[in-house]
Amino acid sequence: MDNFFKFEQIYKSKKSGARVGKIHTPHGTIDTPNFVGVGTNATLKALDSHTADSIDLQLMFCNTYHLILQPGSKTIAAAGGLHKFLNRNKPIITDSGGFQVFSLAYGSVKDELKSKGKKKLDGTVLKINEEGVTFRSYIDGTKILLTAESSVQAQKDLGADIIIPLDELPPYHIGQEALIESLHRTHRWEERSLNEHLKNRKNQAMYSVVHGGIDKQLRKQSCEFLSKLDFDGFAIGGSLGKTHDQMFDMLEFATPLIPEDKPIHLLGIGDLHSLENCIKYGIDTFDSSHPTKCARHGLIFTKNGNLKITRNSNREIFEPIDRTCPCITCQKFTIGYLHHLFKAKEPVAHTLATIHNVQFMVDLMADYRNKILNNEL
Amino acid sequence: MDNFFKFEQIYKSKKSGARVGKIHTPHGTIDTPNFVGVGTNATLKALDSHTADSIDLQLMFCNTYHLILQPGSKTIAAAGGLHKFLNRNKPIITDSGGFQVFSLAYGSVKDELKSKGKKKLDGTVLKINEEGVTFRSYIDGTKILLTAESSVQAQKDLGADIIIPLDELPPYHIGQEALIESLHRTHRWEERSLNEHLKNRKNQAMYSVVHGGIDKQLRKQSCEFLSKLDFDGFAIGGSLGKTHDQMFDMLEFATPLIPEDKPIHLLGIGDLHSLENCIKYGIDTFDSSHPTKCARHGLIFTKNGNLKITRNSNREIFEPIDRTCPCITCQKFTIGYLHHLFKAKEPVAHTLATIHNVQFMVDLMADYRNKILNNEL
Repeated sequence: MDNFFKFEQIYKSKKSGARVGKIHTPHGTIDTPNFVGVGTNATLKALDSHTADSIDLQLMFCNTYHLILQPGSKTIAAAGGLHKFLNRNKPIITDSGGFQVFSLAYGSVKDELKSKGKKKLDGTVLKINEEGVTFRSYIDGTKILLTAESSVQAQKDLGADIIIPLDELPPYHIGQEALIESLHRTHRWEERSLNEHLKNRKNQAMYSVVHGGIDKQLRKQSCEFLSKLDFDGFAIGGSLGKTHDQMFDMLEFATPLIPEDKPIHLLGIGDLHSLENCIKYGIDTFDSSHPTKCARHGLIFTKNGNLKITRNSNREIFEPIDRTCPCITCQKFTIGYLHHLFKAKEPVAHTLATIHNVQFMVDLMADYRNKILNNEL
Repeated sequence: MDNFFKFEQIYKSKKSGARVGKIHTPHGTIDTPNFVGVGTNATLKALDSHTADSIDLQLMFCNTYHLILQPGSKTIAAAGGLHKFLNRNKPIITDSGGFQVFSLAYGSVKDELKSKGKKKLDGTVLKINEEGVTFRSYIDGTKILLTAESSVQAQKDLGADIIIPLDELPPYHIGQEALIESLHRTHRWEERSLNEHLKNRKNQAMYSVVHGGIDKQLRKQSCEFLSKLDFDGFAIGGSLGKTHDQMFDMLEFATPLIPEDKPIHLLGIGDLHSLENCIKYGIDTFDSSHPTKCARHGLIFTKNGNLKITRNSNREIFEPIDRTCPCITCQKFTIGYLHHLFKAKEPVAHTLATIHNVQFMVDLMADYRNKILNNEL
C-alpha cells in the first residue's frame, strides 16, 4: 500500500473486538472508532463547513449520486475537487452513487422493511444489467447510466480521500436466487471499479463493500472474495436484517472474516444504540444522518438521553444543554432560547441543534476510544 | 438626560444634512449613520447572534409583537431580559408591537398601496379605541389588548436599550379626517407610553414616532408636539407615500423640524437606493429586513449591484463574492459553491448569503460615515 493511506491499529480491547486506530489520509488523520458526518450535497445540513471544522468532525461523507446531478462532477473537478469546492481541509469519503439510485427507488430502508416485500422499484431505476444501472435524474428526469467505471471516474473528479466501488443494494425482501445473482454482479462491479481506480489512484483509497444480505454464507463468500483484491478498507453494506440484534449477530459473524489490518466502515448506521454494540465487533467508522436529522426535529442528544426541545417544560430553563460541552450552542445559548427558536420556527434553531448533536457524536466517539484503551468496552 | 443614553453629533457634512454621530447606550455605542438588523424573534433570520456579533452589527431590532406572543415577555424577563435571552452584548431596540398589529392586519405596506384603498383590516384587529388596540394572536387566536401602558411594560420586561411608544399605523389610503383623528390618538398614546416609561426608566431610552402620513402640516404638528416631550430620540413612522421621491420630499421637509441634538431613526426602510438619499436628510439609523430577505432569495449585495446567485453563469465562478469583504462567506467560500448550495436547496445557503449581506450593510454604512467626514456626501 502506498503511504498516502494507512490504517494503524493502536490498541485492541481485552474485553471485546473493539479497537482504537488511526486512518491516515492525504487530508489528515481520522481517529477511530469515529462518527462520520453526512454531507450529501457537499455540506452538512444546516452547518457550513467552517463551523463543522470548528467541531473537529474528522471525516465527512458526501454522496456521489447527488453531486453528479447537482452541480455535476465536472464542475467540482473545475473547482479543484470536493475539498476545494466546499473548503474542507479534513478527510472526505464519497460513495459510488449506487446506494442512492436503489434506495431512492425502493424508498427508505425502513419503508422497504415495512412493505413486507410489496414495495418494488418505483420506476426511477430503468434497467439493471451487467454494464450498470440506468436511472432517471430526480431533478430533471434525464436518463443516466451509472457504471462501475463512470462511478469511479466521477469519484476521481470529486477527489475524496476514500472512494467506494459501484454496488447494488438488494432489498431485504428478495428471493435467494436473486440475492445470489445480485451479489455476484456486485462483486464483478466492485472488481471493475477497483481496476478503473488502479489505473490512476490519484492518492485516493478505495474501500470495498461487503454484501450478502442476511445470508451468512453469502456474507462469508463476499468477505473472502473482496479480501483477495487490493482494496484499502472494507465497508459493510446491504440489508443487515430487521432488528438491531440481527445486525449485531451478522457483524459478530462477518467482521472476523475481514483482514485485521484493514479499516471497517459500517454504511448508514449511527443511532446511539447501534454504535456502542457495533464498536465491540471492531467497526472503525460509522456514517449516519441520524444526529443531524434528529437535530432538525428538535431532538437534542445529551448524556442523559434525548431532550425533546419543543416540550413546554423547557421554556424557562435558562441553562445550557450541557455545561461541559464545548460546542458554540452550549457555550453561548440556553435550552429556553433554543426552545423559543424552535417554537418560532427560526432556521437558526436547526443550525444550533445540529452543532450540538454533531459535537456530541464527536465527543462520544472520543469517550469510546478512551474506554477501549482502558479495556472498559 | 441621564448618562445611560447619549447622542453625540460628531460631524455635519458641508454638502448635505448628513451627519456622523455616536449613540451611547448601556450595551455599547452605535456609530451613525448605521444599519439596524431585524431580529424579529430575538434572532436575525438564518444567523445566530454569535455570528451576528462577529460581523459587528451594532444595533438589532426585535419585535415586541412577536415576542409577547412567543415566548412571552415574562419568559424573557425570567431569562434576565432580551440581551441575556439571546446572548447579545450589543445594543437592542424594540418597537411597541403596534406596527405589526396593524401591518399584519392590512397586509404589507406594498400590498396596501397596490390595493388602492380597497384592502381593509382583515379581522385580526378587533377594536381600536382610546384605550388601545385589541387583536387576535396569529398563533392561537387568543384576544389581546395592547395599550400604551401594556406595550411599555412588555418592553420593560424585554429590557432593550431603546424602546418605542404605542402608535397606530394608518394606511396610505385613509381619509383626511380619519388621519387627523389617528394622529391625535397616536399622540395621546405616545404621551401615555412616555409617562409609563418615566415611572421606571430602567436605563432604557424611548424614541417617539413621528406620524402624519403624507400630509406635511400634520407631520409638522407631530414633530412640534413630540419635540416638547421628554423623548430621547425620534423615529419616523407611518406612510411616507408611494414613491421614493415622495418619501425623500417628506423627509427633507420633516427632519429640520426635529431637534438637532436627538437621533433620528427611519422605521422599516433599508433598500440601497433609499439609504444614500435618506442619510442626506440627517437620518441616523435604519432598520430593514431587506438585506436578510434578499439573501434568502439568493440576491447577493455587491459593490457592482446585486448578484442573482442562482443564475447558471455563476456555476463555475470559483472566486469569492468580494475578495475585500471580511465576512466568513467571502473568506471561505466561492460564488460557485454558494450557487450550488442554493440550487441544492441547502439551508446553509441562506446563512452564508445572510452573513455576507449583513456585512455588506455594515461596511456600506462605515463608508457613508467616511464620506460624510470628507464632505463627499
